[in-house]
Amino acid sequence: MNSYILTVTCPDQSGIIAAITNCIASNKGNILNLAQHTATDIGMFFCRIVFVAQEGFSESDFHKEFGKVGEHFSMKWHIFNRSIKKRVAILVSKTSHCLYELLLKHADGELDCEIPVIISNHSDLAHIATSFHIPFFQVDTAKGKEEYEKDLEEILRQYNIEMVVLARYMQVLSADFCSRWNNRVINIHHGFLPAFKGAKPYHQAWQKGVKIIGATGHFATADLDQGPIIFQDVIRVADTCSVEEFTRMGKDVERRVLYESVRRYLSHSIFFYSGRTFIIE
Amino acid sequence: MNSYILTVTCPDQSGIIAAITNCIASNKGNILNLAQHTATDIGMFFCRIVFVAQEGFSESDFHKEFGKVGEHFSMKWHIFNRSIKKRVAILVSKTSHCLYELLLKHADGELDCEIPVIISNHSDLAHIATSFHIPFFQVDTAKGKEEYEKDLEEILRQYNIEMVVLARYMQVLSADFCSRWNNRVINIHHGFLPAFKGAKPYHQAWQKGVKIIGATGHFATADLDQGPIIFQDVIRVADTCSVEEFTRMGKDVERRVLYESVRRYLSHSIFFYSGRTFIIE
Amino acid sequence: MNSYILTVTCPDQSGIIAAITNCIASNKGNILNLAQHTATDIGMFFCRIVFVAQEGFSESDFHKEFGKVGEHFSMKWHIFNRSIKKRVAILVSKTSHCLYELLLKHADGELDCEIPVIISNHSDLAHIATSFHIPFFQVDTAKGKEEYEKDLEEILRQYNIEMVVLARYMQVLSADFCSRWNNRVINIHHGFLPAFKGAKPYHQAWQKGVKIIGATGHFATADLDQGPIIFQDVIRVADTCSVEEFTRMGKDVERRVLYESVRRYLSHSIFFYSGRTFIIE
Amino acid sequence: MNSYILTVTCPDQSGIIAAITNCIASNKGNILNLAQHTATDIGMFFCRIVFVAQEGFSESDFHKEFGKVGEHFSMKWHIFNRSIKKRVAILVSKTSHCLYELLLKHADGELDCEIPVIISNHSDLAHIATSFHIPFFQVDTAKGKEEYEKDLEEILRQYNIEMVVLARYMQVLSADFCSRWNNRVINIHHGFLPAFKGAKPYHQAWQKGVKIIGATGHFATADLDQGPIIFQDVIRVADTCSVEEFTRMGKDVERRVLYESVRRYLSHSIFFYSGRTFIIE
Repeated sequence: MNSYILTVTCPDQSGIIAAITNCIASNKGNILNLAQHTATDIGMFFCRIVFVAQEGFSESDFHKEFGKVGEHFSMKWHIFNRSIKKRVAILVSKTSHCLYELLLKHADGELDCEIPVIISNHSDLAHIATSFHIPFFQVDTAKGKEEYEKDLEEILRQYNIEMVVLARYMQVLSADFCSRWNNRVINIHHGFLPAFKGAKPYHQAWQKGVKIIGATGHFATADLDQGPIIFQDVIRVADTCSVEEFTRMGKDVERRVLYESVRRYLSHSIFFYSGRTFIIE
Repeated sequence: MNSYILTVTCPDQSGIIAAITNCIASNKGNILNLAQHTATDIGMFFCRIVFVAQEGFSESDFHKEFGKVGEHFSMKWHIFNRSIKKRVAILVSKTSHCLYELLLKHADGELDCEIPVIISNHSDLAHIATSFHIPFFQVDTAKGKEEYEKDLEEILRQYNIEMVVLARYMQVLSADFCSRWNNRVINIHHGFLPAFKGAKPYHQAWQKGVKIIGATGHFATADLDQGPIIFQDVIRVADTCSVEEFTRMGKDVERRVLYESVRRYLSHSIFFYSGRTFIIE
Repeated sequence: MNSYILTVTCPDQSGIIAAITNCIASNKGNILNLAQHTATDIGMFFCRIVFVAQEGFSESDFHKEFGKVGEHFSMKWHIFNRSIKKRVAILVSKTSHCLYELLLKHADGELDCEIPVIISNHSDLAHIATSFHIPFFQVDTAKGKEEYEKDLEEILRQYNIEMVVLARYMQVLSADFCSRWNNRVINIHHGFLPAFKGAKPYHQAWQKGVKIIGATGHFATADLDQGPIIFQDVIRVADTCSVEEFTRMGKDVERRVLYESVRRYLSHSIFFYSGRTFIIE
Repeated sequence: MNSYILTVTCPDQSGIIAAITNCIASNKGNILNLAQHTATDIGMFFCRIVFVAQEGFSESDFHKEFGKVGEHFSMKWHIFNRSIKKRVAILVSKTSHCLYELLLKHADGELDCEIPVIISNHSDLAHIATSFHIPFFQVDTAKGKEEYEKDLEEILRQYNIEMVVLARYMQVLSADFCSRWNNRVINIHHGFLPAFKGAKPYHQAWQKGVKIIGATGHFATADLDQGPIIFQDVIRVADTCSVEEFTRMGKDVERRVLYESVRRYLSHSIFFYSGRTFIIE
């Protein structure tokens, strides 16, 4: 039996949950999990529902009937068939720890997607792609951003990619690219945003003598390091650590944060409103 | 307008949430928050709903109508009017850090209950009760457990106490007492259960050379240190710490764990099934 | 027998530890604990030694002899007799959680200092000072910063205060005051520095949708929120939390951070170099 | 220039550090880092020193001269030349996450050893060994423990292995093997010891409703799951997690704990006394 995830965002009012759950029940869906949050400050309702289709459920009928509910409550809603996996491309440069993390989690059945292609602006990590039997493409940034991003998008199109993960990809994407792939490109910032934006965050952290360092998973936007935050994690550092040790410890945080960010995306737990995310799971 | 918390435990089946939320909506309740979990391993459904009564809501009518829903789905259900505060007694011995934590949180508006009485088997902490204007009673354990527990329960009755917090109370309650106050006495074990049961857990931890120590908030049962766990927290310790330092660090964990345990109880987030708790919030 | 803490900061070179420990041993000191760090990036040596005076130890002789060692290695060094407690003033405004934390820890023997006076720009917390039998003074900020800070310093002088703790004291101290009390005024910033400087950090954090909030203990400097950091702590927040819940959760982090910062100061574990601290313990 | 790590364990008395550091200085060693701890409860002194050999340092002379110091203070001491890497064998069964963690950290230069061989009682992970160009051997446990452990030790001998890591190796080693390789076999227990000993710790944890799960790195001893603990880590779990999710989350903790345990071993930071470890770093 198929199972589905339904996500709903709308202005709060009375009776929303009853309307949603009635529609699911009357269409022969059985709810496994319902997570709901009303952000009273901003008057918004967010809801994520997992349900299984029982004998008699029809996806197209549900679409039609839930469409009426959605219209009535001015909902932004999506429904995902869990048996259809998202197609995800990973972009890398020369550093392997984030790429390995995603590939190992995927091999272990802990990343619910397909990874049909890995793309890089360098050739260094080609052997890793090969050892996991995934096609590897090298793009040529020397062509200029506009030209090489065309190549990049051509590859994404060719592989029917729906979402892009930047696994320590050291190129800034153009505003046009970010806008075309809005909320579908996940990046990792190897620092605790909004502190320590930009390059060398561990050096900045050491200079300041901070006692905790972190990493941030966020969506890529034209405004660098400012996209909606998905997940963050931190680690306590001692003042007896060198910048090199900050970097080593930070790498563990980075890969964990990237994995957890992608996992939340794939489980459809990320809601967007007023420039930030709400994770409802 | 009044707000209510509704908790439901029942065997899982199709249509439960729709039935619950319909009943709330048709009785003029507006759901602010719904947290739900289906433990598929054991086929149980747990649900906690916060709703506000709108114009036309009647508590007695809701009881009647929800009673039918409850019967249909074989529910164990409770409804709490949030404007009626639980009456909580605190029992202490000689150590003050847990008592102070509860009183300060209460004074700061972060513990949603009344604390009409503090009871102890020693007089040491009477001055603290007084400085917070709370009556203090000293019970005499020399009378023997049966006799002194009668006195204790007489005080609890006199103050209409609904729930008891053992804030480092160093007496073991009788099986009879525990059974009469089943799931209504919260205790703190100053060790990470189920490791280090019994006395001197920090000494045990030091002897074993463990690298992390913790504390456990749980319900008191006849089976000592085995009651359902509510909340746990831990702290990393260095091997350069002495047992005294373990104790000092542990005290911070203890008071946090006790507060968080009581807070979960007062927010009606604790569900019981097969000898353990499920915290749904 | 007296015990001492010796702290040493100097440019790194060969033979420093041997010279220090020889001088202690030949003066009849027995080392209990030695923590040392060489920051190789900046070529600096930091060392903190705890030793007990044995039969024959003379404080004044040690001063003389260690002075030669210090001169030879261009050391900045201090020695503290642990039986002489620092005299600490606490400054507060209207919020009690940080004040209570310090007083309770002090009462529990976990803050190794004297607290002879509490000063505030409001009268709200006078009763707390009184219940701990500590003189309370209210300063009048309406006089203007220069005038009222004179009053403030007069009180500090009168009580022979060596160090000041700002326990959520909501006034900005003048640059002159900060410079006279350089590295002797500990402040708490109720946000994770250097992110979210300034007012309302929890509102800023909520707006940004960050997933972790924190607090920072630092020294007060003329450059607001930029003083050397002593301790930081964080807590993970859910997107289902309101700003009010951020604030409630943040308060627990704040009081812990302030206590840990003051504790590190009193144990002489804080070293200063190039605008940041090094905590060596 | 070579650098060295010197570790010292002895009964505490006056003048130890001066004697040690004098001997290093007079032999032309320059101390980079000294970590020392006196466990006053048990009267023991532990010390770990990193020093670089300067012009004129002779390893054999140092051995001779430090031998006298060692004898005088009844020291157990070791000196390690950091340019000589330990030879480590990894034993696995069918699960890959711990093996991958060690190999990736090693490839990234974050595990200071050689890994000349990987041994398993199954063939499942052979391809991973191959992709990292490390010889893989499969032992045949059907032969009986005595026989197959002979084969195992023959392989270890052949590769001059000094230390063994059990990376989720699902066979219990014989008491004889453990005793021959005393304190040189690191195991991971996928539960927070001493709670949840034995098999299926995550099931045990779920049954008990604990709110925090963990993993433990320890030395293998004849007394199963009782060997000296090296490192532990934990993760908070929600009651909405299934046992499968406990297992998934636990795997991340396990690999981290195993890596950190091995790293501490290789940095010679582990001291043994009265059946437990002291980590001094």
